[in-house]
Amino acid sequence: MELSRREKSLVKALTTRNGRRRSGCCRCEGVRAVRELLDNFPQLVQFTVATERGAASLPGKAPEDLRIVSEKEFEELAGTVNSQGVIAIATIPPDAAGEVAGEFILALDQLGDPGNFGTIVRTFRAAGGKELWYTKGSIDPWGDKAIRSGMGAQFGLKMRRFETLAELAEKAASSGYGNFFIADPHEGESCFTCPGLFDKSVIVIGGEPNGVMENYAPARRVIIPMPGDYESLNAAQAATIIIFESVRRKLAAGGK
Amino acid sequence: MELSRREKSLVKALTTRNGRRRSGCCRCEGVRAVRELLDNFPQLVQFTVATERGAASLPGKAPEDLRIVSEKEFEELAGTVNSQGVIAIATIPPDAAGEVAGEFILALDQLGDPGNFGTIVRTFRAAGGKELWYTKGSIDPWGDKAIRSGMGAQFGLKMRRFETLAELAEKAASSGYGNFFIADPHEGESCFTCPGLFDKSVIVIGGEPNGVMENYAPARRVIIPMPGDYESLNAAQAATIIIFESVRRKLAAGGK
Repeated sequence: MELSRREKSLVKALTTRNGRRRSGCCRCEGVRAVRELLDNFPQLVQFTVATERGAASLPGKAPEDLRIVSEKEFEELAGTVNSQGVIAIATIPPDAAGEVAGEFILALDQLGDPGNFGTIVRTFRAAGGKELWYTKGSIDPWGDKAIRSGMGAQFGLKMRRFETLAELAEKAASSGYGNFFIADPHEGESCFTCPGLFDKSVIVIGGEPNGVMENYAPARRVIIPMPGDYESLNAAQAATIIIFESVRRKLAAGGK
Repeated sequence: MELSRREKSLVKALTTRNGRRRSGCCRCEGVRAVRELLDNFPQLVQFTVATERGAASLPGKAPEDLRIVSEKEFEELAGTVNSQGVIAIATIPPDAAGEVAGEFILALDQLGDPGNFGTIVRTFRAAGGKELWYTKGSIDPWGDKAIRSGMGAQFGLKMRRFETLAELAEKAASSGYGNFFIADPHEGESCFTCPGLFDKSVIVIGGEPNGVMENYAPARRVIIPMPGDYESLNAAQAATIIIFESVRRKLAAGGK
């Protein structure tokens, strides 16, 4: 089927926050991200635009409602050179519902950079994480940049949004995740030895390590030791170290 | 002193590779990066451009040859909104000379992305790393984007460039760093348990895990276990995990 004029302007409009808000849709570029979307939320996909090559490079079952366009037409629609010839348009996924799963919840507090957000999402997914929670003030995980940086990994996680860190903590506690940790650049227990760090816990990254959660529940501070005395890890690097410490501990304990 | 017209066009020209090649200079933006440069290579600094506010925010000793410009003039020169009102221009630092120091050498092979390169440099520095080696085909560590992403951490490391991985391996071996490891996304020993990983070793990240080094010396492959079965770590995240595994091991062994 051909790409209609209406669809074409929707694809373009979705690179802006306004366009997403008005349509309630998101735009998902690249082979990997589109695959994630199709696998996890097929019912939300409105249509997929691809070049002949892009469509051929998509592994697995071909998407329904596929619009084939020329390389030239595609270029006009693509956000980057890495779009790989395929873009899917979908209704923005609703917040995850149902039971909370996994060993620990990764909570991003007011994380404003889409590149960092996306990188954390991918890394968490690579490590086998399940629950990615975030607070208001973070960037929109369904924005085109965040999806690109995350390579669509957000479609495969349980994403839940909260108005405040206190609300987030409350939901976690009532779900049996009662141990709170805040990654702190200045003080705290070492993330490499801190007991119970991944034991039905919530680990908060980014934003200000503010008092909101402290008011709700006693939170322990964890720090990443930096022998270089060069304090310079960004949120994505800090999250990566902590996330893979969970992998290391699990393997050391004989887990799969 | 005022910024001359010649200096002004140099500052602008240094955002391009051509401009750097012609002048042999690099451009260093932001409070932190400028401080690193001034602390490590004061003799290479040609001049520093700053707004009143930028100059005041620079900790420590004020740079010589300071050019104060208006906020408006500065905006025209700045590469990003994060320039923080200060840019230093310096001769590109020569390759590090002298003895090889530190527990292990981090080697970046044909790493083409300045953001990744910079992030790795910062992270390595935070972990107390010393020797950052790289091969031809990697981006220029003294490019403005790499310096920005690295926050100037490259000025505080021993940076050495090699034509090939084989040359790099040869220099390492002759300096007493004879254990070679290549981070491999597909197979190898776990980075969390692999013995000797940081014991007078070279760890190669990025590029193709090609046969060049294999031809020179037997290299062991290390892998980052990913229980998520979602293979998606970029070079910067992979490097971060390995670099901080070295910190963890050192602390576990009772080192400071």
